[in-house]
Amino acid sequence: MTNHLFDRVLIIGIGLIGSSLALAMKRAGLAKRIEAVARSGATRAAALDLGLVEAAHADITAAAPGADLIVIATPVGAIGDVLEAAAAAASPGAILTDVGSVKGAVVAAAERVRDDVHVVPGHPIAGTENSGPHSGFASLFDGRYCLLTPLRNGAPDYSAAVDKVEALWRACGATVERMDATHHDLALAVTSHVPHLIAYNIVGTAADLEAVTEAEVVKYSAGGFRDFTRIAASDPTMWRDVFLNNKEAVLEILGRFTEDLSALQRAIRWGDGEALFDLFTRTRAIRRNLIEAGQESPAPNFGRDQTDTES
Amino acid sequence: MTNHLFDRVLIIGIGLIGSSLALAMKRAGLAKRIEAVARSGATRAAALDLGLVEAAHADITAAAPGADLIVIATPVGAIGDVLEAAAAAASPGAILTDVGSVKGAVVAAAERVRDDVHVVPGHPIAGTENSGPHSGFASLFDGRYCLLTPLRNGAPDYSAAVDKVEALWRACGATVERMDATHHDLALAVTSHVPHLIAYNIVGTAADLEAVTEAEVVKYSAGGFRDFTRIAASDPTMWRDVFLNNKEAVLEILGRFTEDLSALQRAIRWGDGEALFDLFTRTRAIRRNLIEAGQESPAPNFGRDQTDTES
Repeated sequence: MTNHLFDRVLIIGIGLIGSSLALAMKRAGLAKRIEAVARSGATRAAALDLGLVEAAHADITAAAPGADLIVIATPVGAIGDVLEAAAAAASPGAILTDVGSVKGAVVAAAERVRDDVHVVPGHPIAGTENSGPHSGFASLFDGRYCLLTPLRNGAPDYSAAVDKVEALWRACGATVERMDATHHDLALAVTSHVPHLIAYNIVGTAADLEAVTEAEVVKYSAGGFRDFTRIAASDPTMWRDVFLNNKEAVLEILGRFTEDLSALQRAIRWGDGEALFDLFTRTRAIRRNLIEAGQESPAPNFGRDQTDTES
Repeated sequence: MTNHLFDRVLIIGIGLIGSSLALAMKRAGLAKRIEAVARSGATRAAALDLGLVEAAHADITAAAPGADLIVIATPVGAIGDVLEAAAAAASPGAILTDVGSVKGAVVAAAERVRDDVHVVPGHPIAGTENSGPHSGFASLFDGRYCLLTPLRNGAPDYSAAVDKVEALWRACGATVERMDATHHDLALAVTSHVPHLIAYNIVGTAADLEAVTEAEVVKYSAGGFRDFTRIAASDPTMWRDVFLNNKEAVLEILGRFTEDLSALQRAIRWGDGEALFDLFTRTRAIRRNLIEAGQESPAPNFGRDQTDTES
């Protein structure tokens, strides 16, 4: 892996992903210098204190000139405006990329910027339920996928820019794949957006029950609910933006989900044990495939604090 | 903690819970002798090889006489019949308990047995996605709740029997609470049964998509889907029985869940970011309460293999 892939990297937004990327780039020695832009003074101070970056700026227009890589790591709803401001101020030849969970909107915004900078929309599929500059860690992207959705009408040296962004993510530990933005948004609606919505929803339903207190819900959560609360603790701003910006794909998958759930509901009402057993058996195989693909560990997780297997 | 609470314990069904209970009882020295009943010869051999029990039987009627504690740890659908057979063969004064996730059906069956044995329905809220005698471990119940739903019309020495079952679970590391079976079944529908149903359902929906391949679902699962596959890998027989035996409470909670989900769907369709943000903020607090209650660890879990927080 080549060191110093970039001379001066500017990361706009230094939350979980931005701070993890800074640490992963430092781990691999990918940049001579990393700087950040953050609106909040507390975040800028934290980024410097934690040693994530060499400089922290408040203003995109002042910070962008001279950066050869600009990474936009803000919530999805802000990416369009930030991209516009950063591209307008960037030096010619600069590469701009983002880490947003929705790609169609970014591609649409990218097609409007000047053609002497290169926009390479990207999405590392990695995260935790924590947010903010303190929550980052260098190994977040190790063994995870990062999807790039390059523009169709790139300038002559656009493909070299895409290759460079791909090299960056590989050096940060990720496996990179390229795909169409529409396909990305549908795939992620299934593997991430709708699961998050469902988790938020069941946790909300539980909190609203009159007959079962919240204290009981909390105490008896080891039965499965606990895992939903973890997902439902994810950053509210980020997730609001995801749903507002990936509306069509989310509604499409949600429609299928509720259709399937109605069939299950009917099977329970009519005591159709065979239909239940068949589905429950089929879903087991998917987890096996996940473990084989290295995206999951076989260690039992419901019994979180398991330390021994023998008395 | 008193040792040798029981002289001869018989565990009927030696899967994840049965084997973990045997190990937890051995850890605390609670029984002079533990024996098991299992239908399958392979399971009986495994229980002996693993040192879980001192003897393994194929037949309940032959094994039950002389046991002072009989624990029924079969799938919920079998508990009624097993309870009937075990109670008929048990010695007078024997205590019978179970570990089923649904309690209304067990209480109904318990009210039909002879009154010189004591049935104390119970439910340790603990588990992993693994099943079988090899999956047990002694610490499974540590810090977890075990709910007892005692019968209303017990014999004179019934309350002493309930106390003894409570002492057993406490010695195995659990916190014990007593409640009405109907309330138990509703609370567990929220914290366990409906979450499992939803997880099974989304994994099934994902597998059925034409536009997104299963390979993609597996590769991009770190976005949230991964946690659902874990829950949806739980034992199919056990879960079929849960839904067939807790139909009313599950349908009640499921009705509220889909109602709430329709409201979220509408918020997404109409771009109501405030409604989304409000719910997502509210659900965060529940996880904080969970961590404070000791039922969850604050360590980030989406980034499963996190080992360092600095580069």
